[in-house]
Amino acid sequence: MILVADNLQITDPAIQKAVHNRDPEPIAAIVRECEAAGAGAIDINSGPLSRDPAKKMAFLVKTVQASTDLPVLIDTANPAAMAAGLAASQKKAVINGFSLEPGRLATILPLAVQYQVDIVGFLLLPGGQVPLDEDTRLSTALDLYQAALAAGLPPERLIIDPVIVPLLWQSPDNQAAVVLSVIRQLPDLLGFPVRTIAGISNLTTGRAGPSKKQLLEQTYLPMLAAAGLDMALLNMRRQGSVRTGRVCDALLSSKIFTWEEIPEP
Amino acid sequence: MILVADNLQITDPAIQKAVHNRDPEPIAAIVRECEAAGAGAIDINSGPLSRDPAKKMAFLVKTVQASTDLPVLIDTANPAAMAAGLAASQKKAVINGFSLEPGRLATILPLAVQYQVDIVGFLLLPGGQVPLDEDTRLSTALDLYQAALAAGLPPERLIIDPVIVPLLWQSPDNQAAVVLSVIRQLPDLLGFPVRTIAGISNLTTGRAGPSKKQLLEQTYLPMLAAAGLDMALLNMRRQGSVRTGRVCDALLSSKIFTWEEIPEP
Repeated sequence: MILVADNLQITDPAIQKAVHNRDPEPIAAIVRECEAAGAGAIDINSGPLSRDPAKKMAFLVKTVQASTDLPVLIDTANPAAMAAGLAASQKKAVINGFSLEPGRLATILPLAVQYQVDIVGFLLLPGGQVPLDEDTRLSTALDLYQAALAAGLPPERLIIDPVIVPLLWQSPDNQAAVVLSVIRQLPDLLGFPVRTIAGISNLTTGRAGPSKKQLLEQTYLPMLAAAGLDMALLNMRRQGSVRTGRVCDALLSSKIFTWEEIPEP
Repeated sequence: MILVADNLQITDPAIQKAVHNRDPEPIAAIVRECEAAGAGAIDINSGPLSRDPAKKMAFLVKTVQASTDLPVLIDTANPAAMAAGLAASQKKAVINGFSLEPGRLATILPLAVQYQVDIVGFLLLPGGQVPLDEDTRLSTALDLYQAALAAGLPPERLIIDPVIVPLLWQSPDNQAAVVLSVIRQLPDLLGFPVRTIAGISNLTTGRAGPSKKQLLEQTYLPMLAAAGLDMALLNMRRQGSVRTGRVCDALLSSKIFTWEEIPEP
């Protein structure tokens, strides 16, 4: 399971200031920290860039790629910023992402075909809501897949995000359990080994201490890994979660097990 | 997922002495500790009782049941000790367990029919070896089920133990991953919601520090829980594993989530 750093967020005031001043160093420092912690990709979450979104995203992509050879996920709903990020990219980039929302279908999905890159598709209804039962999630995956094919995307470029929601939402069905079941079923449903990604931080949204959130992440991550999740988007500063991700690999890989793979706290 | 305490083992010198002296208190103290920690059942592992195995097992069962109303698992390969434990039991008891080994089929399995109790069946070959590939594990489960039916056991009394082996064994296949797959497939294979149990302590057999073992248990337990494991046999003094077991229930249950369910470290 590849750990994708979600640490680069424009909502972080230090990042916001660095982007405003076109100062690469604070961004490069976070990228180096995430790579050293074991990240296999870096998500660039630009948020709602108020002015010059295209120029700012191009700056972010160039800055991150100057610090690492890891793939970047360009994480914005703004088509101009997405296009600028892709145009600026000199290394592997992934679009994060599109959904059945008409605006994203029309403006984001075609960029994956144009730039020949992988793209994340969120299991969201055309109105943007999360489908709350398993059948609707699965039919949404089929619709997403059909939309991607219709746009000319090679199927192996699609990565599905089943959309983890806060545990506090879990009504009427247990959404955490539904997401696991959906991840397990997607390859059979779509007829090929479709890759999956999920953002784990959402799970623990709410008023709770960091130790409870950490324990929840460390318990849900192995469930996701065993269900077949390919990429987990998470805070690389949560060392417990990062350690657990490494142990998931040791437990599930076909390599011969050695104790050296297991990190010490 | 019910946590079954594996703390009551005759290999523990304090327990050995208590049994020898017919002193209930050290045994009762462990049972109270395990129940307070959240155990849902107590495994009584008598090991190879050298003298008076039947009397000793009867003493153990009576002593445990005098301290708790939790079910007990009578864990011995000695048919006379098993029969004596069942005869002494005044509360819920489970046989742990039988396998396709001819001796156990002939002497242990009939006791479940005679005493009308649940029985654990180990996925072991008739020669006692662990089947190391998935297909052989599944065909062994079918053979075990057929043997149980042939002996007159009602199918809902069968609990299957897929047998977790040390990670260091994982050759040629990854046994930890195979066990997860087998647990997921058993209900469909046997055509009814067969219950499963697994002993987690075996996973981390080997020369490694307690923190690595703890992390491995805390990573594998959620995988087992999400695969549908009903009962996890474990050391109730490993507080991290016990906490993780509780969090598994909070994540997978159909109850509305509340932060109060999540234990603090």
